[in-house]
Amino acid sequence: MQLKPLGDRLVVKAVDKEEMTKGGIVLPDTVKEKPVEGEVVAVGTGKVLDNGQKLPMEVKVGNRVIYSKYSGTEVKFDGEDYLILSERDVLAVVEK
Amino acid sequence: MQLKPLGDRLVVKAVDKEEMTKGGIVLPDTVKEKPVEGEVVAVGTGKVLDNGQKLPMEVKVGNRVIYSKYSGTEVKFDGEDYLILSERDVLAVVEK
Amino acid sequence: MQLKPLGDRLVVKAVDKEEMTKGGIVLPDTVKEKPVEGEVVAVGTGKVLDNGQKLPMEVKVGNRVIYSKYSGTEVKFDGEDYLILSERDVLAVVEK
Amino acid sequence: MQLKPLGDRLVVKAVDKEEMTKGGIVLPDTVKEKPVEGEVVAVGTGKVLDNGQKLPMEVKVGNRVIYSKYSGTEVKFDGEDYLILSERDVLAVVEK
Amino acid sequence: MQLKPLGDRLVVKAVDKEEMTKGGIVLPDTVKEKPVEGEVVAVGTGKVLDNGQKLPMEVKVGNRVIYSKYSGTEVKFDGEDYLILSERDVLAVVEK
Amino acid sequence: MQLKPLGDRLVVKAVDKEEMTKGGIVLPDTVKEKPVEGEVVAVGTGKVLDNGQKLPMEVKVGNRVIYSKYSGTEVKFDGEDYLILSERDVLAVVEK
Amino acid sequence: MQLKPLGDRLVVKAVDKEEMTKGGIVLPDTVKEKPVEGEVVAVGTGKVLDNGQKLPMEVKVGNRVIYSKYSGTEVKFDGEDYLILSERDVLAVVEK
Repeated sequence: MQLKPLGDRLVVKAVDKEEMTKGGIVLPDTVKEKPVEGEVVAVGTGKVLDNGQKLPMEVKVGNRVIYSKYSGTEVKFDGEDYLILSERDVLAVVEK
Repeated sequence: MQLKPLGDRLVVKAVDKEEMTKGGIVLPDTVKEKPVEGEVVAVGTGKVLDNGQKLPMEVKVGNRVIYSKYSGTEVKFDGEDYLILSERDVLAVVEK
Repeated sequence: MQLKPLGDRLVVKAVDKEEMTKGGIVLPDTVKEKPVEGEVVAVGTGKVLDNGQKLPMEVKVGNRVIYSKYSGTEVKFDGEDYLILSERDVLAVVEK
Repeated sequence: MQLKPLGDRLVVKAVDKEEMTKGGIVLPDTVKEKPVEGEVVAVGTGKVLDNGQKLPMEVKVGNRVIYSKYSGTEVKFDGEDYLILSERDVLAVVEK
Repeated sequence: MQLKPLGDRLVVKAVDKEEMTKGGIVLPDTVKEKPVEGEVVAVGTGKVLDNGQKLPMEVKVGNRVIYSKYSGTEVKFDGEDYLILSERDVLAVVEK
Repeated sequence: MQLKPLGDRLVVKAVDKEEMTKGGIVLPDTVKEKPVEGEVVAVGTGKVLDNGQKLPMEVKVGNRVIYSKYSGTEVKFDGEDYLILSERDVLAVVEK
Repeated sequence: MQLKPLGDRLVVKAVDKEEMTKGGIVLPDTVKEKPVEGEVVAVGTGKVLDNGQKLPMEVKVGNRVIYSKYSGTEVKFDGEDYLILSERDVLAVVEK
């Protein structure tokens, strides 16, 4: 991956629904945010706290993550679609 | 549970009304937020404070908790419905 | 009381108007928030400050408190109505 | 006074216009907030700063204070009308 | 002056346009805030920072100051009109 | 200059378009803020940080600066038009 | 480059679409922000944290960066179009 996200951002490759983790994620309630699943392909160096300390990313490259569909910014890079989002927009890591 | 929530988030499995704690929770006033009851099935590692200190979760796996119905994000995982929410959206723990 | 509020929250049992402290509390101006009186039945462990220090609750179980009617979340528990609110929504303690 | 305000709040008894300090306070511009004058009858223990330090109240019981008419919450207690407001809503103390 | 402003507030006596500093202050653009000129007649003890330190007022009694017309609260005291405003609403001091 | 701006504010004298730095600054997109160029004629003593430390101004008197047209407050002083704005509204210094 | 951005700002020269990194960046979803690619031509000295510490810029002159199209302010300087934006508006660096 040649995209290096800044700060506490990460680059995610969305997972096709057919490939989703056991049973996938379905949105039962339309007024709620739609969570989707993706694979982390790049992470930033972490958020800088008010005291100047750099906080390491909790999410690692290769993690499967769940995030709100409407968070982040979509980019197309080398013909592939990615999403750049902040770690605070990641709801959970799917452990295998 | 294979969902590992990030930061101060937790994963909750809503409790069916029939199974609610003695007498359950009823919303007497429709203009108020609707609190619901659920069981905590996974917790994050805790919120990071401005000084870099990680604050342990007050809520534990197995706790019965009350939270506002409109907080958090619903996910379906392995065919089950869950809610991922922040600990600050948890109103109270129901002690048994 | 089996409801254990989190953080700086407390559980209050509203006082019937007939039982109110000497002369009770009347709302003279309809455009203002309506303060009501209640008895504290449970308190959280307190708010965590930015430096990680836990601030003890100023309000104690058994206190009569005045709070804005529109703050907090109503719950019914064991057939009784309660209100869960933050200590910052408590205006004053009625000393006996 | 049996009302003990929490944090940086104070309880004020509004002063009748006829009793106002020399010439009283008149609102010349209707688009501005309306300041009114009152006497402080109770004060809280003070605001807690982010570092856990408690900041003593600048306003004392017995002070005449000027505050914005629309700030605070009105209560009736023992048949008297009071206002509970934050110290940050007090504009000035009238020195005698 | 018998008005003692709290915190980082100050009391200002507006200057009549005829008495304004050389050429006065004219508002050339109606969509901008209107700055006006006044003389400081009383100052508070200063703002308390998050670490509990009290920050002395930069503005002194007797200073000519420029401030936005729409900031602050007007009061009439002893038959005179004054404005109570925060030091952060003072744009500049006019040096003589 | 007899105007002494407070805190992190500065006083700027707008530069006529004909006198602008090589080619000047043109606004190609009307939905964007309009940046303009000016000369700094006075600076404040700097912003006070939360820890009480005073942060020196990065901008100096005599600097050519670019700032958003809609920031700050216009004043007329000694028959001249000036703009008082915060250093955070200064986008860049034009180095000669 | 004669524009010296202040604080954590940087000056970017947008890259023509024909010259974009392999396959460029395409916006697949119109409700999302449009990210664009540019080359960094100048950087500020960095953001000052609340403790007075200056945080060095993560982005360097010469970096290819991706940023949201609607962030920043456009300027024309020496006949060229540039964008001045904050480092926090930079989504990622494109590594070569």
